Amino acid sequence: MTERIGFIGLGSLGLPMARNLMAAGYPLTVYNRTASKAAPLTAKGAMQAERPVDAVTPGGIVVSVLWDADAVDNVVDQNGFLDRLGPGGVHIAMCTGSPEAAKTLAARHAEKGCTYVEAPIFGRPEAAEAKALWIPFAGPAEAKERARPILTALGAQGVFDFGEEIGTATIVKLVGNFLIVSASNSLREAVTMARNSGVDAPAVIDMLTQTLFPAPIYQSYGKRLAEGGAAFGQSDIPAKDVGLFKDAAGKAKTQTPIAEMLLDLL
Amino acid sequence: MTERIGFIGLGSLGLPMARNLMAAGYPLTVYNRTASKAAPLTAKGAMQAERPVDAVTPGGIVVSVLWDADAVDNVVDQNGFLDRLGPGGVHIAMCTGSPEAAKTLAARHAEKGCTYVEAPIFGRPEAAEAKALWIPFAGPAEAKERARPILTALGAQGVFDFGEEIGTATIVKLVGNFLIVSASNSLREAVTMARNSGVDAPAVIDMLTQTLFPAPIYQSYGKRLAEGGAAFGQSDIPAKDVGLFKDAAGKAKTQTPIAEMLLDLL
Repeated sequence: MTERIGFIGLGSLGLPMARNLMAAGYPLTVYNRTASKAAPLTAKGAMQAERPVDAVTPGGIVVSVLWDADAVDNVVDQNGFLDRLGPGGVHIAMCTGSPEAAKTLAARHAEKGCTYVEAPIFGRPEAAEAKALWIPFAGPAEAKERARPILTALGAQGVFDFGEEIGTATIVKLVGNFLIVSASNSLREAVTMARNSGVDAPAVIDMLTQTLFPAPIYQSYGKRLAEGGAAFGQSDIPAKDVGLFKDAAGKAKTQTPIAEMLLDLL
Repeated sequence: MTERIGFIGLGSLGLPMARNLMAAGYPLTVYNRTASKAAPLTAKGAMQAERPVDAVTPGGIVVSVLWDADAVDNVVDQNGFLDRLGPGGVHIAMCTGSPEAAKTLAARHAEKGCTYVEAPIFGRPEAAEAKALWIPFAGPAEAKERARPILTALGAQGVFDFGEEIGTATIVKLVGNFLIVSASNSLREAVTMARNSGVDAPAVIDMLTQTLFPAPIYQSYGKRLAEGGAAFGQSDIPAKDVGLFKDAAGKAKTQTPIAEMLLDLL
């Protein structure tokens, strides 16, 4: 449990995840583009790297929590990052990009003898704090074995193994985000219709989320929508993810009338 | 518990519901357009009516389980049905029609001194058999008080009171069916994309229905879709209900881009 881990990306998800890892006993070397974000972690003993490569231990584990595959590309392109990670090194990349970008990244890691594990995240920052994330992951078996306890320690309440082929976990993530966007936008349409018809929208949502749809997604979005607060209709899922779903479907010769309509709405 | 009830409509939902009522001790007089469908009930002691009006006891309770409001209109238009039901009579109508049609029917009942209770049904025939239906209902308080134990006896696992105004329970039902159609079609798009991308679709559905979407709708449709059986992509919800949702939204000046797209798909 005492292996030092490199941790790159201290955004709204990355920061609580890094905090969880430290609480679980992992010493961290952290890097964030805006260095000041590391302060709460360095105050508790984390080392701070000046460049991403400085967070890397040869043959060790580095976790990145970045926005998309381009951001990961940018990190691994700098200062011989992959050369330093090198043989035996594992990079657990938690971004949501395209399956192709993940495959390309995996191949680039393999060239340097290190391993890319894709582990995109389902969950909001509050879920990261509460260690209630859901994480599908894929990659070579040996690397996943090293990754699994780290994913649990950083905040997964469940880790789902989708095999060795990189790109697979990304597809699971894109499928999930597409379904979330579809559900939240459908809820918005439904709640608006009920309210405009003079029906008690919270009562409708109460019934439906107790019966047909007793799922966190419906309960949380439904409540926010029915209460008509500031978050009315705002999904936390970025439009880019629905675009990635549509693009990946296009590559698999699959029609996506619903995804296209949702992209128009977003 | 021994009041004789008139029961009209012995289709795939009505028949198990009538059977549940008899099992709960209610004597029934049943009517169905195709008379032979009543055989399993008459074999157990139900009386069979030749015309809908013959199932009616003055001042009593009659339950109808018909396809839509037109079918209910057709029944109450025949042979002085409402005159016979008369003062104190309650008609529990379990169809899914438009809110306006329900209001018109309620007014016609009131003219004859009897009461219309709207109680549309969420659930498939298997759920009716298993007494696992969900029923939103609306109407005058006194009539609902008489209706509630009957709804429970005929197969509701939950009954949700949406007040006195007729049309409200219908809107709840239309909202629910819209959300079901949206979820099932989104699942179809998602499962098709995953499968065509070479990903193990049942594993994806397993993960998502254990985590983000642990709801019966997602679990049952997701399983059928992922297994790719005969039911692939078939929702049990008729297109007419999505049309009714869209029409009711239009009357409430609410835009329904998702419902319109789903209607194109259906």
